[in-house]
Amino acid sequence: MRIGLLGCGTVGGGVLRICRTRVPELEVRRILTLPGELDDPLVTHDVADIIDDPAIECVVEAMGGIEPAHGFLIRALEAGKSVVTANKAVVAAHFAEFMELAEKHDVAFKIEATSGGGMPWIAGIEKARRIDEISELSGILNGTSNYLIDSMERSGKGADEALAEAQALGYAEADPSADIDGIDVKNKTIISATVAFGSLCRRDIPVLGIRHLTKPILDALEARGWSVRLLARARQDSGRYAACVEPVVLSRASEEAHVPSNFNLATLVGETVGELKFFGQGAGALPTGNAIVQDLLDVAAGEKPRYATEETLEWDSALLGAAYLLATNAPAPEGARVLARAGESGANKALYLVFGLDPVRAGELVRASAASDPATFAASFSAEAAASLESLL
Amino acid sequence: MRIGLLGCGTVGGGVLRICRTRVPELEVRRILTLPGELDDPLVTHDVADIIDDPAIECVVEAMGGIEPAHGFLIRALEAGKSVVTANKAVVAAHFAEFMELAEKHDVAFKIEATSGGGMPWIAGIEKARRIDEISELSGILNGTSNYLIDSMERSGKGADEALAEAQALGYAEADPSADIDGIDVKNKTIISATVAFGSLCRRDIPVLGIRHLTKPILDALEARGWSVRLLARARQDSGRYAACVEPVVLSRASEEAHVPSNFNLATLVGETVGELKFFGQGAGALPTGNAIVQDLLDVAAGEKPRYATEETLEWDSALLGAAYLLATNAPAPEGARVLARAGESGANKALYLVFGLDPVRAGELVRASAASDPATFAASFSAEAAASLESLL
Repeated sequence: MRIGLLGCGTVGGGVLRICRTRVPELEVRRILTLPGELDDPLVTHDVADIIDDPAIECVVEAMGGIEPAHGFLIRALEAGKSVVTANKAVVAAHFAEFMELAEKHDVAFKIEATSGGGMPWIAGIEKARRIDEISELSGILNGTSNYLIDSMERSGKGADEALAEAQALGYAEADPSADIDGIDVKNKTIISATVAFGSLCRRDIPVLGIRHLTKPILDALEARGWSVRLLARARQDSGRYAACVEPVVLSRASEEAHVPSNFNLATLVGETVGELKFFGQGAGALPTGNAIVQDLLDVAAGEKPRYATEETLEWDSALLGAAYLLATNAPAPEGARVLARAGESGANKALYLVFGLDPVRAGELVRASAASDPATFAASFSAEAAASLESLL
Repeated sequence: MRIGLLGCGTVGGGVLRICRTRVPELEVRRILTLPGELDDPLVTHDVADIIDDPAIECVVEAMGGIEPAHGFLIRALEAGKSVVTANKAVVAAHFAEFMELAEKHDVAFKIEATSGGGMPWIAGIEKARRIDEISELSGILNGTSNYLIDSMERSGKGADEALAEAQALGYAEADPSADIDGIDVKNKTIISATVAFGSLCRRDIPVLGIRHLTKPILDALEARGWSVRLLARARQDSGRYAACVEPVVLSRASEEAHVPSNFNLATLVGETVGELKFFGQGAGALPTGNAIVQDLLDVAAGEKPRYATEETLEWDSALLGAAYLLATNAPAPEGARVLARAGESGANKALYLVFGLDPVRAGELVRASAASDPATFAASFSAEAAASLESLL
């Protein structure tokens, strides 16, 4: 199969290397780069050299960002070319449009590399759906935020120090907002939930990040047998669904609490298969390149997955109802139980416990508290961690 | 696709239920059972009613054991029917014969359900191999032994009590030898390594079990930050390979050390994909039934995997070289370091550390020690756990 490659940075470079060294049946025929980015006879700076080349059957997009990626992918699909992309932002923003065009032109649109890097996560969801309805998914889908939390937990580093180290190692960008504020996971959650539930997931799902998670808060949780991870969460039940991104307080006995460094771990629950987890490298040139090349092999074999283009399930955030931890110097929320007063457990914030929230109402509470304390941190409790609450209060 | 089902116990019953309720395109047309086992109009007690029925395209074998399963599968393949089996013992014993017949008659022979229950483990290995050479695999592939270890670690139960509980829950059989002596994992390791390395794995791989693992030994390890799991292990490098089954001392920070109850966790390592882990339910009617139905859907789609029928790699047990723990009342092995004397750490056995062994030499050492202490227990150290040894000696 002949391929046009849009973008040859980290991920595009990985695709090029894997195709050239390991998969000779995939021929990269043209590479779109910015001027000066790559010295290779296949390089062009004009996307038309790829879109208008009738010999190119499949376009790989590894540019990132919304535009011009969005426009280029539309043109590729309209030219009757299959598309394989690693770009979660553009897929989360324009999923239905891409799928409709792929269907209209009878080509493939493949997205394994958008979510979970080298893990066969999207393929795993699709395979499980051949037999089961998927009732639930959750996961660590952002390596950077996991690296930061793991680094604070294991090495005793503070949040700023852990971030500086992650930036020095290339695990975090100069502006870490997409990672620590949950935007990256949000895009992956929208994509994963759409595939898992067979219904287009809305774009404005609730998101809480880990910007205000500090070492003292982690220490206070650890003393109670808990850890925290930034998780994608989604559930469906009886025609309703909900999805969100939020830090979750987990039992330290859980698999998630032991995901090291920048690894990912994602879980699906199906009625007959039960709980199924995938662990692997969620980012990086070769793992993400591997996911793209897997998609390319499927496209070459004639696979054309068809994902939902409409929101057929009804949104109901109550499906993700939980108890929440609130770490803040703002006044105690109504009905909150006090886990620790400011200073009591090393944290300079009070730790409150609020029962009966859901991600939407938790977000409202965080925004209300932020008026007094902009560094308010909130996390939901996993069912397992919540089970240990009774004995602590 | 029309199916003949051989055996309708736990796994066969799961297949029947999943096909009937969820996958109408798979029609179970005839069921071979023992007299009195199942009341269903499709039941027969004569396998010829399935083998000789030209309408049956695929035979599912969920009987277990070597004979008559082996003879039935040979007859099915020779009759030009595809085969899907959950029977690890018969596949490990006759893998090459089955593959040669499947190839000769141009039919499928699928084995997902033999190893790892509902986890897409065999499919995951095959998929990774489309791009990567797999250098290494390891995993918890026996739910019963994991349940026993987890139960001792979490609840403080002794080995006998944990086993009695597992038997009461149906997680362990009346005769637990296949599980605690590693025979079940041995069959799964032979199958997994054959698929992973593309070379027929020999049948007499070294095996150490957990029969002589006691609560005091676990406690002594836990005090040093370690846990133990019974693992399948296999490596290939430069045309050589080795595989074994043995208890492995792991860091308590590892994912494996937190696999609860009777779950499985299996890992493969590929050059571009890196480390990839699959976690799920390794046994049970619905998870294992799910794996069989996944195979059936692939067979219906025309998939015919071809596994190695010859041992093209050279055996070299040194590839699995490691430091070993020996818990015994036999005399100290030559060159052993003393981790604890008998009684010192609660265990009634001395704990020795022997460097520079491999699974074959470790087995020889256990057999030699067993002359004085038949309850000698041995386990290798994972690289991560071994890294902490220096500071302890």
